[in-house]
Order: sequence, then C-alpha cells, then structure tokens
Amino acid sequence: MANAVVSQSGGPTGVINASLVGVISEVGKQRGIDHLYGAIHAVSGIVKEDFIDLQKLSMEAISRLALSPSSALGSSRDKPDEEYCRKILNVFQKYDVEYFYYIGGNDSANTCYLINSMAEKIGFNFRAFHIPKTVDNDLLVTDHCPGFGTAAKFVACALIGDDLDNRALPGIKIDVLMGRHAGFLTGASVLGKVREDDGPHLVYLPERPIMIDKFLADVEGVYRKLGRCVVAVSEGICDTDQVTWIEKIAQTQERDSHNNVQLSGTGALADYLANQIKSKLKVKRVRADTFGYLQRSFAGLQSDVDRDEAAECGRKAVQFSMKHDNGSVAIRRTGNGERYSVDYFRTDLSSVAEKTKSMPDEFINSEGNGVTEAFVEYALPLTGGLPKTEYLGGYPRIARK
Amino acid sequence: MANAVVSQSGGPTGVINASLVGVISEVGKQRGIDHLYGAIHAVSGIVKEDFIDLQKLSMEAISRLALSPSSALGSSRDKPDEEYCRKILNVFQKYDVEYFYYIGGNDSANTCYLINSMAEKIGFNFRAFHIPKTVDNDLLVTDHCPGFGTAAKFVACALIGDDLDNRALPGIKIDVLMGRHAGFLTGASVLGKVREDDGPHLVYLPERPIMIDKFLADVEGVYRKLGRCVVAVSEGICDTDQVTWIEKIAQTQERDSHNNVQLSGTGALADYLANQIKSKLKVKRVRADTFGYLQRSFAGLQSDVDRDEAAECGRKAVQFSMKHDNGSVAIRRTGNGERYSVDYFRTDLSSVAEKTKSMPDEFINSEGNGVTEAFVEYALPLTGGLPKTEYLGGYPRIARK
Repeated sequence: MANAVVSQSGGPTGVINASLVGVISEVGKQRGIDHLYGAIHAVSGIVKEDFIDLQKLSMEAISRLALSPSSALGSSRDKPDEEYCRKILNVFQKYDVEYFYYIGGNDSANTCYLINSMAEKIGFNFRAFHIPKTVDNDLLVTDHCPGFGTAAKFVACALIGDDLDNRALPGIKIDVLMGRHAGFLTGASVLGKVREDDGPHLVYLPERPIMIDKFLADVEGVYRKLGRCVVAVSEGICDTDQVTWIEKIAQTQERDSHNNVQLSGTGALADYLANQIKSKLKVKRVRADTFGYLQRSFAGLQSDVDRDEAAECGRKAVQFSMKHDNGSVAIRRTGNGERYSVDYFRTDLSSVAEKTKSMPDEFINSEGNGVTEAFVEYALPLTGGLPKTEYLGGYPRIARK
Repeated sequence: MANAVVSQSGGPTGVINASLVGVISEVGKQRGIDHLYGAIHAVSGIVKEDFIDLQKLSMEAISRLALSPSSALGSSRDKPDEEYCRKILNVFQKYDVEYFYYIGGNDSANTCYLINSMAEKIGFNFRAFHIPKTVDNDLLVTDHCPGFGTAAKFVACALIGDDLDNRALPGIKIDVLMGRHAGFLTGASVLGKVREDDGPHLVYLPERPIMIDKFLADVEGVYRKLGRCVVAVSEGICDTDQVTWIEKIAQTQERDSHNNVQLSGTGALADYLANQIKSKLKVKRVRADTFGYLQRSFAGLQSDVDRDEAAECGRKAVQFSMKHDNGSVAIRRTGNGERYSVDYFRTDLSSVAEKTKSMPDEFINSEGNGVTEAFVEYALPLTGGLPKTEYLGGYPRIARK
C-alpha cells in the first residue's frame, strides 16, 4: 500500500480549504491509497516530518473546513531548490508517500515538477499533482483559478458599498486592490455596477502603465462631470518607465524570499494618490483605502461557485493521479452567463510552473482606465452572484411649491 | 392633513436603510400622515426643497433598500445653526410637514432638538424624532445603536480570517479599526475568537491611553510566546498625554465641519506601527491593514439582528410620534445570550444630543490591552452569529518514523 501527502502553499485564499476537503473526500474512495497525511506549513512541514492524519477528521470538522478561509494546514513561502527537493523525497520514501497533492500557485506547480523529475531520476514510483489556487487568477492554461471568484466577490461587494457611501457623502475615493502583475482582482471591482453612473468610474491595472498626470486628468474629468469619483487601483500599477509607483514612493522595499517587492500591507500608495489629488486638483474630500489581506482571508463570504470548483479541483487531482504520473488540474469553461458551466482536465506541470498570466487585451478598455464588457462576462459568473442594492438619490423629485 | 419628512445624516451604516424602510412601512399605517417625503442629502436637501415621494417606491425597491448599505437618501455633514434651522422650519411650514424623522447620530439628535424648540417658540405644530444609527455605538441612553451590530460582524469576520491568515504565514499583523472616541467597534475584533490562542491577541482602545514602549513590549511578549501576533488598534488611540497617535504622526490634519480630525481614509497609523515594530523588535514579517470605510459600507453582510432592530427603530419613531411631541428611540435589552431580546422606548432628545458614550470600565481588561468576557456577552448577540472555522495546525501529529 501507498500513502499520500497533501499540503497548501503561498498566500491563502477563501476556498483553498475546499480543495483540501476535495482531496480528503476523494482519497477516501481510492483503494490504492492507505493513509492521507496533511503536511503542516507546506514543504517546510514535509522536511520536518510534521504531519497530521487527515482521515481522523470528524465530519463536523470537515464541514467547517470547507467554509473556512485561509490555509488550514498552514502555508510557507519557501521555494525549494534541488537540495530541498531531495530532502522532501527522502521523507516521502521514508513514509511510503507515492502521491503528493500540492495546492498552490505557479511556484507550487514548479515544486511539484522538480520533485517529480527527481523521483523519476532515482526510479522512485511517485506522482505529484498540483491543484491551482490564487486570488490573482494569474495561472496559465486554466480558464480561471479557484480562489479568484471569492476574492472577486469580496472586492465587488466592497465596491458596491463604497460607491453607495461615496454617493451619500460625495468626494473622491481611491481603493487600492491586490494584484502584483495581473489586474483581474482589481478589474473585479466593477462587477457589481448596475446604474449608469455607478462606480468605480476608473480602474487602473498593472497591465497598463500610466503617468500620474494622466491619472489626475482622468479623475478630474469624472469629478467635474459627476461631482464625485470612485477609483480602483491595483497595487502593482506602474509608470510608463515600467517602474511600479509603489517602488517610486518607497525608498526601501522589503522583498520576500521569491525576490518580490512587498506591495500588500502598506497604505503608502493609497495615501500618495490621495495627497496628489488633494494638492493638484484642489478637491477637499479625498479618501483612500487599501483593502489588504481582507481580500484573501475573510470569514463567511465565499462564492458558492468558487467553493464548489475548488473542491472539485481537489477531487480531480486525486482521480487524475490514479491514471497519470503527474500534472496540474485545469478548468475549462463549457458554458457562460446564466448557463455557466465548466469541466476539468489535466495539464502538464511545466505548462503552469513559474509562469503567470496577465489580463488579455480584450478585457481592458482602449483608454487603459477600465475593463470591458467581455471581462464582466468572464468574471461575473465566478462570484456566484452579487447583492442588489437601491439608491434613492436618482429618483424623480416632487414638484417644488 | 399633515405631511412627514424622513432623512439620513452623518456617516453611513450597513442598516441605516432598514430604519428608513421601517419609517416608510409604519407611516403607511398612520391615517394622520398624508405624504412621506424623503429629503435628499439630509438637512441640505430640506433647505433646497429636494424631496422624493417615498410612497411611490415599489415593493421590490423597498426589499432591496432594506438590504442596501449606506444612506440611500444621501447624507450630509452640515451641522445646522439657528439660521439653518429657521430655513428648515420655513420649508416644513411651506410643505405642511408636521413630522420629521431623522436617522443619525448625536449631532442629528441635536438638530432635531433645535428645530423642535424653535417650532415650539413660533407655535408651529411639529414633532421631531431621532432614530439612532452609528457604527461607533457611542450614543447615550440606548443599550446599543443600530449599525453597530453589522459593523461588528464585518470586523469580527475580518479578524477571524486575518487570524487564520496569520496562522498560515506567521508574523505580526496590525489592523487599524474605526472608533474616534469609543472602542466598541475595535473591541468587536475579538467576537469570533474560539480557540485559546486565537487572535487578536491585543486590543487597543481610545479609552485607554498607551505609550509606544508599552505597546511594543506587549507585542513582543505575545510574539515570543506564540511566534505570531495579531493586534487590533483603534484609529483613535492616544498617548498618555491624551494626544492621539495619529495627530502626533501627521503634521497637518484635515478637519471636518464638526472640527474633528480626519482619522479614516489614511494608512498612516498602521504603517507607523508596523515600522516601529520592524525597527525596534527586529521582526521581519510585519503587516498592517487599515480597514477604513469597508467597516461601514459593505454590501451583502448585514447582521440580521441589527437589520431587524434598525427597522423596528424606524417603526417605533413613527408610533412614538403619534403620542409624543418629540423624542429619540432607544433600545432596552430584556434578555441576553441565547435568549437575547430587546424592547424599545422613547427618550428625550436632549439626553442623546451632542453627547457620546465610551466603553464602560467593565468591558476593558485591567492591562488596558484587551476586552473582557462582559463585553463579549454584550456585543456578540448583536452580530446575529458568526461563522465557525477550522484550523488544523493544532491537531495531534502522527508519530515520526
């Protein structure tokens, strides 16, 4: 008999635990797998042999797990090199682990690829499968990533509320949203728009470099027309010289172990933009919020569609691993709009590993300050539906006496 | 026949429109009221005679309205003086408005009081009623304020998620929450805590001045013990000299028309605290988020309890106005815990006007860095219940081989 390990890596999402539940439930149906171990804190837990027995979870715990945000097994930012991978394989051999399910982004797909290649070389019978997750929606091959729909729902609900707030007390509002290189999540800010003058009125994405003067002119244009303006800005927007605004603002930048600049967890970009508007446009009421980690870990606000797909990706990984030596689970869209539907397929680890996807051109407007109807058609079904609201300020007035 | 005006003032909440729906539905039952006008943008809409006919709303619109965050009639920060109140009364006389329902905080109660006193003086038959709302929960007399429960639910759900995120990728996390003078909403950050080591581990309130050195020592203590630390900080916390930290940080502060320093809509306090921790405690992974307006206007996340009470406050205001000349609606708690229940009573406008309530001493721990079980018993029922979650990192490990 063989054992299996499942783990979670990188930044948490709102449905990464649903994928874990999918793995647990499907492994339970497979006769070829004896034990299912959960590695605590991803690859770092594997090398430390820090495992729990996932088959001992109660049904109650599993139900709660599927609804819990963040990575219940803990996560890690470690990016294994050859030496690290060798240690992982040693542990796997010691514990008779022949199946490895790794829920994560493109770095995790790469880790699967490295370990799998090394296992092949040494003739160890081993199968590594990657289960996609990311709030950024930036993985290749798959139509979209589990985790994105829930984060998109959070951002859309936030902007619905924030736009109504801005109607009640008009001014200029800047919201800085997650998205290092891909603008999908920032684009999701528009998904709740219903009325013609609903905000956000301007959306700035990492895919479209912009100069501060153009930004200010855009904001001024909307403000002069509507008397208010709501702006969604990706944390990763850059200037026309390709340097991110946040890099320009910050003198020193903390970099994570993958050599990425830390963009989340600071209000510097939002405050900078608000101050630019206050000083250059002479508008008094300017506010700026940075949504930060709320976008990826918020309890009680999953997209049902996203959760179900995340769970199915976990199940599919186990099913695919019964027939294939390795792979990554991908989603194919088979219907859209009210008839939204998907199916799942296996793709090569190398096709997902270490690469990222950006917003395609047809999702971004020609001005580079908004998204298109094609993007809304793509992203809206993933949220599982959004709340409908009412604003009375546009209703007809009674005749004056 | 007489007419009525209803309006909404100050900062929006998640259920201020439920109170409006309560007024609309109850006015529909009263034979003494002919028309119900909604004034757009509060008192500024009254003096501009900017009214809509609320009796023309469809049932569909009313249903959506009850679930919509922010002030659907628009709001205003205007604080009427005697001259302004005279203009308001002139408009009311012109439109035969003998009933005025004003949904707002203590400033709105004061406006009701001023207009009502002036009407008495000139012998105009007029009744002004205040309907309480505030996310800060800082009004006197009432047990709690409509709007607080929903904001508390948002903050609690955010901290449940954020604490799980911090477990997955350990470090120090600072969350800056709303609360200028009252710590209720910041205190609500603890309401989702279940496990013994759940965060937030430290809570700082405007009611307890604190020095930065004590703050850093507290954070270091938790971090050394747990390897992580989640901290909830009110935007209004002040130093032992009573000056707010944010005033100390900022050189220039925008003040609103009520001469309050603008504390929301800036990430300065969060970033300052994160940088203090990084430099003084030498901890690498430190993040800080400022929740900002999300706390008061987020679509699709009401507390059912809060919404129902907000609607009932609107209905009660209309009922009380049939019997009394003026007043403010207040909530009395008649049962707690699983048997939570309330009733409603009328209180004098002057008892609510212009005053604010702080967290009572029994709600704050002796160290001044957390809340008590008494606070949890007080606040938890108002959220209408919180999501249950699962974290697996505390489960027993399998025996090492």
